[in-house]
Amino acid sequence: MSPSSNILIPARIAIRQLQKRTYSMSSTPKPRHLLSIADLTASELSTLVLSASSHKAALKSGTTPPTLKNALAGKTVAMMFNKRSTRTRVSTEAAVTAMGGHPMFLGSSDIQLGVNESLYDTSVVISSMVSAMVARVGAHSEVADLAKDSSVPVINALSDAFHPLQTIADFLTIYEVFGRKGGKGLGVEGLKVAWVGDANNVLFDLAIACQKLGVHISVATPTGYSIPAPMRDLIRSSSSGAGFVETNVPEEAIKDADVLVTDTWISMGQEEESLKRINAFKGYQITEELAKKGGAKDGWKFMHCLPRHKEEVDDAVFYGERSLVFPEAENRLWAAIAALEGFVIKKGNIV
Amino acid sequence: MSPSSNILIPARIAIRQLQKRTYSMSSTPKPRHLLSIADLTASELSTLVLSASSHKAALKSGTTPPTLKNALAGKTVAMMFNKRSTRTRVSTEAAVTAMGGHPMFLGSSDIQLGVNESLYDTSVVISSMVSAMVARVGAHSEVADLAKDSSVPVINALSDAFHPLQTIADFLTIYEVFGRKGGKGLGVEGLKVAWVGDANNVLFDLAIACQKLGVHISVATPTGYSIPAPMRDLIRSSSSGAGFVETNVPEEAIKDADVLVTDTWISMGQEEESLKRINAFKGYQITEELAKKGGAKDGWKFMHCLPRHKEEVDDAVFYGERSLVFPEAENRLWAAIAALEGFVIKKGNIV
Amino acid sequence: MSPSSNILIPARIAIRQLQKRTYSMSSTPKPRHLLSIADLTASELSTLVLSASSHKAALKSGTTPPTLKNALAGKTVAMMFNKRSTRTRVSTEAAVTAMGGHPMFLGSSDIQLGVNESLYDTSVVISSMVSAMVARVGAHSEVADLAKDSSVPVINALSDAFHPLQTIADFLTIYEVFGRKGGKGLGVEGLKVAWVGDANNVLFDLAIACQKLGVHISVATPTGYSIPAPMRDLIRSSSSGAGFVETNVPEEAIKDADVLVTDTWISMGQEEESLKRINAFKGYQITEELAKKGGAKDGWKFMHCLPRHKEEVDDAVFYGERSLVFPEAENRLWAAIAALEGFVIKKGNIV
Repeated sequence: MSPSSNILIPARIAIRQLQKRTYSMSSTPKPRHLLSIADLTASELSTLVLSASSHKAALKSGTTPPTLKNALAGKTVAMMFNKRSTRTRVSTEAAVTAMGGHPMFLGSSDIQLGVNESLYDTSVVISSMVSAMVARVGAHSEVADLAKDSSVPVINALSDAFHPLQTIADFLTIYEVFGRKGGKGLGVEGLKVAWVGDANNVLFDLAIACQKLGVHISVATPTGYSIPAPMRDLIRSSSSGAGFVETNVPEEAIKDADVLVTDTWISMGQEEESLKRINAFKGYQITEELAKKGGAKDGWKFMHCLPRHKEEVDDAVFYGERSLVFPEAENRLWAAIAALEGFVIKKGNIV
Repeated sequence: MSPSSNILIPARIAIRQLQKRTYSMSSTPKPRHLLSIADLTASELSTLVLSASSHKAALKSGTTPPTLKNALAGKTVAMMFNKRSTRTRVSTEAAVTAMGGHPMFLGSSDIQLGVNESLYDTSVVISSMVSAMVARVGAHSEVADLAKDSSVPVINALSDAFHPLQTIADFLTIYEVFGRKGGKGLGVEGLKVAWVGDANNVLFDLAIACQKLGVHISVATPTGYSIPAPMRDLIRSSSSGAGFVETNVPEEAIKDADVLVTDTWISMGQEEESLKRINAFKGYQITEELAKKGGAKDGWKFMHCLPRHKEEVDDAVFYGERSLVFPEAENRLWAAIAALEGFVIKKGNIV
Repeated sequence: MSPSSNILIPARIAIRQLQKRTYSMSSTPKPRHLLSIADLTASELSTLVLSASSHKAALKSGTTPPTLKNALAGKTVAMMFNKRSTRTRVSTEAAVTAMGGHPMFLGSSDIQLGVNESLYDTSVVISSMVSAMVARVGAHSEVADLAKDSSVPVINALSDAFHPLQTIADFLTIYEVFGRKGGKGLGVEGLKVAWVGDANNVLFDLAIACQKLGVHISVATPTGYSIPAPMRDLIRSSSSGAGFVETNVPEEAIKDADVLVTDTWISMGQEEESLKRINAFKGYQITEELAKKGGAKDGWKFMHCLPRHKEEVDDAVFYGERSLVFPEAENRLWAAIAALEGFVIKKGNIV
């Protein structure tokens, strides 16, 4: 998603003397936010994935876990979305509903962060009326600023830097297929994930998660489309010893991979940019042939956060037996439930 | 509604080899959908109308029927509306709410079916997160395609071919005024409905319902605006012996009618088309005079699905004592409740 | 808000003979609406503010008052907003949710009052499906017309003439800071409020409330921007003896004031009008210096309904210790809860 924006966490954290004397902050302790997988310990990340998994099993069998039942009754969760985002919207609304709360959707025609009034004013005011804010923004600084001044938990539902809910859903999907069940963690150590495509927000949080959970990740991007240096540093700093390799050759990344992942790298709307990208990403379409050529493991699976274009993966893989894309999409719902439980109900005391 | 679109159920049901291996379909049985009154037996249609009637009585007296109370608690119903539609939207949201669920409204600025990704992908993904989809589309093929791949019930809330919720509301209205209460069915056999106006989606399902329920229906349309042949066949094939007559003379259709029904036939926006239609529908405005001239029954009543323009019915009839338009509009709520109960709670086991 | 529109309650209450024979009105008694603070007695206004205060205390301590718990369960409240309005929207949705109901947001892309069908038709139909309508309109006549034909309570959430929910929130804020607690009323008699700025909808209801509650109000507006005569009469007719003074000199209004209030007077979008206003409102920016010069009371506080522009108040006041703007904004939530309780649950039997 948003493949063309690789802007990272901005340094601009201006000192606002006057704003220090805030109304809502004075009496209540600062809430804990979920802005990136980098905010989580390995153990917390595992717990969120395992909670998502057990809630999924319970709710699918018709039982609402007691910790979720009416957990948000009478509570409003503000969803501040500056861009259309079907999966993120539907999964968030369904998650809040499953917990008995009211998801209040505010699109770009309802609210424009920072346009008509300062982000500070918006954050303080809205957070004084709701139980949480789920934000899908452009620049990561928007959700970071929102969180800084909010008196309630803020969950990043997609910024140009991170996409933590997607990563929780992705690891739920990996756990379901590859995980060793019954242990304390996910049992995914030693697996290998290959990312073949653009270096974007989805990759960044996925790579951080892999590093935290002992999963090797190889990233193939064309020259000129690689991971920006500060983000590379952040990924590396998350390492618990698992490998993290970058290359410009898809086949190299794919070698011995259990999971092949990609995302759209086509730019929509911009004709010229699209042509440039189609050229740059030649050889990056995921197919059975590419996987064989690269030497992926026999039982390799395919993941994609959707929506998908044919340029990055052909029909045979996307709709085939290796594809996990539809369970992966459904898992967005269970990831959102786990995140809301962890940050809103349990107030960040996840483990 | 949408009087200018008479496109029928398209034949294009492409064979999608790859898509056969679907994720969500494999384990769960195919849900039953409500796309048209043609999907219902006479007995099922009567049951839906009688349920709507009894739920209306109960809820208006302040009692929530046990089968509805919290029936959708924790559940999300996706409302996918590609066009503005006040009554359909309000009645659906209020119906889902009455059953304790969350109506998630997705307008054309939120989701565009088939634009950014395939309808197949959208249907599989959204249906994996919600309990039902209520769709208000343009071409009927859109809602039919949505239903084909959905793992949850799809309810057609208006397509260019059918409008089943309007028909259930219409028969609830007819039942309230003319029905013989206390029997097993609606007790409407032998009544005569006259449709005077354009041949559109509202008419098609109404005519099918009349045929199923033993109600005579006469349809007056101007030359060049009559019922398309395949739809005529579908209506005829629904007959249980009740009459179905077509004419180009309003007075002929009105003869002995208990109920006069029409809908807007003015095209909005298109100046030239409007003038053409105003000319073609000369003599089609429903008035006391026309009804008298045509020889409607003494106690004839008037119905219209709204919104209304003066061209098709004058103020004296529309706001007069014969008018059932406001109870008919309210009955959209009770029809939606009955349909949700029948297809989502009872999973299509209506009788 | 809407500073450029000072149009008052229009006289156009056309006699609609045909519409008298209404469907929904016949059987049910006329509901009571909240269109302006002028609709309330002093005692009712105090009760609403005190209810807001006690519900705030209860809900903030984690207890839902029994009169609110599930009070709107299964019920839909239509929110008909023809303009963007963050605070009004969020507070209303959160209030309906706190009472267990479903807030159904209808923006200008969902419904346009009086455009596609008559306001009468819209009001009768929608009110037959929902439990209340909360309307944020342009011309006050729109919400007045909506109320006239509605079978359920209508709450004015901002028109060009009145803003009663803002006033309830404002008096809750004043009560929290200045009120004598424990008595039967608010204990605000004898306080002085100074309004320095444009004469708009927020001022009108605030002035009426001041007059009803024994609070002196001084209004400073530039020449040419003063209160229209019929509104002045309405404010005066609300007097219980408290002073109501108008001036063109900010310092005069500020003299001995406990509370300084303003609102945006900049016109957005209209370049020429903006320049004209910036010129007219020279000397109207609220600052410590202006307050000192005018002779406000030592402990004076600042209020503003937001969103704010620097032209009408500087950062030092707006973000400073005198500022009540953030609790005032939060109080919109508690005001909405009190109003919904008073008009929807208690059906207007407030005291």
